[in-house]
Amino acid sequence: MATKAKIGVLGASGYTGGELVRLLLRHPRAEIVLLTAERSAGKAMRDVFPQFSPYQLPTLVAIEGLNWAAAALDVAFCALPHATTQKVLMMLMAQSPHTKVIDLSADFRLHDTAAYAKWYGHEHHAPALQKEAVYGLTEIHRRAIRQARLIANPGCYTSCAELPLIPLIKAKAIELSEIVIDAKSGMTGAGRAAKESMLFSEVSEGFNAYGVGKHRHMAELDQEFSIAAGRDVMVTFTPHLVPMNRGILSTIYVRGVAGKTPEELHAILAETYANEPFVHVLPFGQTPQTRHVRGSNMTFIGVAKDRVPGRAIVISALDNLVKGASGQAVQNMNVMLGEPETAGLL
Amino acid sequence: MATKAKIGVLGASGYTGGELVRLLLRHPRAEIVLLTAERSAGKAMRDVFPQFSPYQLPTLVAIEGLNWAAAALDVAFCALPHATTQKVLMMLMAQSPHTKVIDLSADFRLHDTAAYAKWYGHEHHAPALQKEAVYGLTEIHRRAIRQARLIANPGCYTSCAELPLIPLIKAKAIELSEIVIDAKSGMTGAGRAAKESMLFSEVSEGFNAYGVGKHRHMAELDQEFSIAAGRDVMVTFTPHLVPMNRGILSTIYVRGVAGKTPEELHAILAETYANEPFVHVLPFGQTPQTRHVRGSNMTFIGVAKDRVPGRAIVISALDNLVKGASGQAVQNMNVMLGEPETAGLL
Amino acid sequence: MATKAKIGVLGASGYTGGELVRLLLRHPRAEIVLLTAERSAGKAMRDVFPQFSPYQLPTLVAIEGLNWAAAALDVAFCALPHATTQKVLMMLMAQSPHTKVIDLSADFRLHDTAAYAKWYGHEHHAPALQKEAVYGLTEIHRRAIRQARLIANPGCYTSCAELPLIPLIKAKAIELSEIVIDAKSGMTGAGRAAKESMLFSEVSEGFNAYGVGKHRHMAELDQEFSIAAGRDVMVTFTPHLVPMNRGILSTIYVRGVAGKTPEELHAILAETYANEPFVHVLPFGQTPQTRHVRGSNMTFIGVAKDRVPGRAIVISALDNLVKGASGQAVQNMNVMLGEPETAGLL
Amino acid sequence: MATKAKIGVLGASGYTGGELVRLLLRHPRAEIVLLTAERSAGKAMRDVFPQFSPYQLPTLVAIEGLNWAAAALDVAFCALPHATTQKVLMMLMAQSPHTKVIDLSADFRLHDTAAYAKWYGHEHHAPALQKEAVYGLTEIHRRAIRQARLIANPGCYTSCAELPLIPLIKAKAIELSEIVIDAKSGMTGAGRAAKESMLFSEVSEGFNAYGVGKHRHMAELDQEFSIAAGRDVMVTFTPHLVPMNRGILSTIYVRGVAGKTPEELHAILAETYANEPFVHVLPFGQTPQTRHVRGSNMTFIGVAKDRVPGRAIVISALDNLVKGASGQAVQNMNVMLGEPETAGLL
Repeated sequence: MATKAKIGVLGASGYTGGELVRLLLRHPRAEIVLLTAERSAGKAMRDVFPQFSPYQLPTLVAIEGLNWAAAALDVAFCALPHATTQKVLMMLMAQSPHTKVIDLSADFRLHDTAAYAKWYGHEHHAPALQKEAVYGLTEIHRRAIRQARLIANPGCYTSCAELPLIPLIKAKAIELSEIVIDAKSGMTGAGRAAKESMLFSEVSEGFNAYGVGKHRHMAELDQEFSIAAGRDVMVTFTPHLVPMNRGILSTIYVRGVAGKTPEELHAILAETYANEPFVHVLPFGQTPQTRHVRGSNMTFIGVAKDRVPGRAIVISALDNLVKGASGQAVQNMNVMLGEPETAGLL
Repeated sequence: MATKAKIGVLGASGYTGGELVRLLLRHPRAEIVLLTAERSAGKAMRDVFPQFSPYQLPTLVAIEGLNWAAAALDVAFCALPHATTQKVLMMLMAQSPHTKVIDLSADFRLHDTAAYAKWYGHEHHAPALQKEAVYGLTEIHRRAIRQARLIANPGCYTSCAELPLIPLIKAKAIELSEIVIDAKSGMTGAGRAAKESMLFSEVSEGFNAYGVGKHRHMAELDQEFSIAAGRDVMVTFTPHLVPMNRGILSTIYVRGVAGKTPEELHAILAETYANEPFVHVLPFGQTPQTRHVRGSNMTFIGVAKDRVPGRAIVISALDNLVKGASGQAVQNMNVMLGEPETAGLL
Repeated sequence: MATKAKIGVLGASGYTGGELVRLLLRHPRAEIVLLTAERSAGKAMRDVFPQFSPYQLPTLVAIEGLNWAAAALDVAFCALPHATTQKVLMMLMAQSPHTKVIDLSADFRLHDTAAYAKWYGHEHHAPALQKEAVYGLTEIHRRAIRQARLIANPGCYTSCAELPLIPLIKAKAIELSEIVIDAKSGMTGAGRAAKESMLFSEVSEGFNAYGVGKHRHMAELDQEFSIAAGRDVMVTFTPHLVPMNRGILSTIYVRGVAGKTPEELHAILAETYANEPFVHVLPFGQTPQTRHVRGSNMTFIGVAKDRVPGRAIVISALDNLVKGASGQAVQNMNVMLGEPETAGLL
Repeated sequence: MATKAKIGVLGASGYTGGELVRLLLRHPRAEIVLLTAERSAGKAMRDVFPQFSPYQLPTLVAIEGLNWAAAALDVAFCALPHATTQKVLMMLMAQSPHTKVIDLSADFRLHDTAAYAKWYGHEHHAPALQKEAVYGLTEIHRRAIRQARLIANPGCYTSCAELPLIPLIKAKAIELSEIVIDAKSGMTGAGRAAKESMLFSEVSEGFNAYGVGKHRHMAELDQEFSIAAGRDVMVTFTPHLVPMNRGILSTIYVRGVAGKTPEELHAILAETYANEPFVHVLPFGQTPQTRHVRGSNMTFIGVAKDRVPGRAIVISALDNLVKGASGQAVQNMNVMLGEPETAGLL
């Protein structure tokens, strides 16, 4: 496309919103024309993120009262809280049907209205859009993303677990009943809301699990793993908080089926991702660190042999704000617009 | 004293309150009989600080409705917010006049009602108590503390600056017009209230000054330095936040008067504190680190020669939650009760 | 005992050595009479750990040339590197047979000379002592520790996994073939040697696994779990490094046998540790954080239900330098000397 | 220029070397053709910095035996240790006179051979080159840089202090005898060599000054401030280490001369830097944080009024690895090659 796409970022004052702006500023085909933020409406972006002081950016506005038809966005990134999102996007997509929407909340990730109601405690407010939405893990659903009008950008934990596991499940290479995902995330994954449990003095010099046995990302994992397997899959998943800003590392314990060795599991992943620009499979036996992907849109995956015969340890790492959120969203935008998939992301 | 003192901690759910409980639990003469917390009333202490799970402690109660005469506390530590403190202590000290009170807020630190009104924006609610209160920097005001009924425990920044500077000022050894205090504090100094600016993701991997030119601790510094000098003193003071939990380090720039050398300044401090258990002056030229005093009630002080002739660099370090707050408070309690000053603090 | 025990700390300049000194300084029955350090011989303890500046401590000396008979130690804590330990302790225990020795290295933890040779790559230099040594996890081997002359203090990772798992294994309550231990440790666990991989700039803001499939602590786990089970047990164990100083948290995935529910597993642990001063089992469904045990000799254990039927998630946390090393060592000393087990540790 | 410049990075395995590679990879006119590293010679760049795994880069080679004429580099960045640098660059510049050299060590920053000998303890090995070298703070010496063959890239601390102070000194707006620079740096500023004092467990949760009264960067400050003032200037400068990876913040205390107000000092800086892409002066009274410049080539400067009459507090912040080292070096390359100064740096 010759001209630049007109971009809006809804919810620009949070961490994923700020990261979207950072990435879009260096994208050759993107022009940011709209930034929204409720409590900070009227402020400049530099007031909520002083690192943007050197750049010209639209003033933050409230969503209430916006005319989406007049805004005529080519692409809207939506980084609003759960539930609010459904209402805003129903209106936006009704008023401006040609706008492509990439939603970074959890609102449209589950296809099944019953699963949604169970995990979120209420009926979905926009069930028609829920059906239409495409789950935006590019490497897995690229073809559908290309045609989509509404993308449900995946969760950070789920991306980190799905990229290594879906190819193994599709290949029927691992026991579905013995998958254990032990995940560890930096603090930006928990958002920018002021809560006591997220204060520096509560977090620094400490480590803990949370949501043990009942984290909402499980519903996403169930959905995508079941699609890949062709039957219901339920995995064990425990998230933990690491005293660092960015990064997720998942340590995944699997058992090969029918004598599949760790080396064979590694070969499946290496082949699957051989030509993917944003997934890098390390040599067998090497495992990644979060610092190797910090600030980038990469996912690093390693596979090692467990000493317990037949078992393998798969470790994946990504930056929760980039491949786990805003970078993944820009990658999806590139696919939707027919741009090179890596534009603005290297 | 043969029996244990009956102790109350008002505001036990904050960081200084929790630190008081930690110190009092191992004090041979203290028995904690009352713990208050407003929002957490009805909870166990282990619910707000799980590290106390192994210990028997009173359930947290609200202050509203307490009968101070019936409580019959020997000592009340008050770690309540500014302004609330004045109202609570007026009532407590009226109902239970024999209770000794050690207040950790800023409410009673300033003797001058006009200075108080200027810095805090309103008249003091308990001016009589304000007059009565003794400023509780033990090494400087030990004699008055011994007789006092109400102690205003000093601020963490101010303690860290006053311990090295007051002896130099008293000795008329430094230029009063050229004192620069560049102070750096860990995050617990900012309290446990949930604010965006104190989130891990806002604080980690960053460093900044705040309150530049107008921090309230300046009023305390003015008061104590002016008393020491016998005339008005106004210093330059800039606080900074360090991405760590505990610790304050002050880098203090001074110029010797009348040819006083850095070595002579060092000698004044070394002599002043030679027999103090909680102030340690390092050999000339060595400077302290916050980690050397972490968790202890010590203040370490170092003096080094600046390359600019006539100038010295004085560096002091203490743990803001111990010598800068709760340890200092227990030290004051020991003095008030006639216990060994180091009881429970080594 | 009326008089104080004469204590030596071999290897006092490392983190576990420093932590031993910190704990022994406040122990009512311990007198530190000997401190050794090879590269720092001749220095004061305050030169390697300035936090000890206020205390009187023996000057650091080299081991070479010490006369152990003349030293006449009641207790020697040995925090020397692997292999060196064997040679030093052979000589010490030959020259001074009445000295009780608590070794914090890995040298005497494995009873089986063949297992030792396999994991450490050479024959044991003191096979007779290897046979004599008692594995020093107090809660599990208290009776044998009481009689022992040589204690092999357990590893930090292993303590954190054995305390929750051994009672479950002894009770035949969990599937032995499906135990997964995902362990996370602060950096002091890796020692004080200067290595690039342990620099602040390499560690901060990052997270990674290491020793995947082949960490030496596995041999200790095998030994103790096999003793508890009465047959060979081999578990999956992956250690990770957390950007913090202190603390280990183990997330342990187990499956109940014969319909044992997570609640029943919790009941076994709660009953086992009901009267233990240093192991605290949280209410069912609650899980611990490393910050709750920082600086203390406590182990906190939580048990939660996994959503996968029949599976439970057990999480344990301890301070690697205290219950995982030096505090555990002092606890063993108390048992060996007939002192109250909690002396100096509360 | 139409084709890409052939670039070599000498010393590519350290932090500044790695940062140079990160920046050059996204520079539209740069092609990395040579990477050297002594201890890691023969390895791939991905072995020392796994984050480069997705990129094609030359294998690391040793400098010994390289033929500089044959290498025919357009630009050589030199990130070698002090002293080694002098010898390598003498040979390189003799064999390949047309290669433009940007040196990131301290070796060529001082023009005065006597000052060099005093601060570094030995005669300079390449005095002719020392005379020829241009001090590479672009905003101050842009014209000379454009013509230069050898650039001495400034130190990180010095850049952070010189950018705010040189314009004030040139304008004769501040007292030269009362300048105090209290500087705080993240740990990457101290390099990647394995030293005990730089271990995570020594640094985390702590803060300290170092080099008090005698840091080598003082010589650079003296030189540049004296040039700006037209007479000898000697300032007070104290560096500190912050437990974070990146960033320097300098808190600078100055007194206006002849009634110059803080507002007037601010105006001088705002005007000086109005059109500079990499120096941003905040509105009067606002002060910067290191996190606002992390990862970017920006310097943020704030000026606030001190409450002591006549004094101002100037605070500057930059990323020590970017504007304080590698980004500054690329900026200089752009100037030397006639490229847009911001190429590869936004």
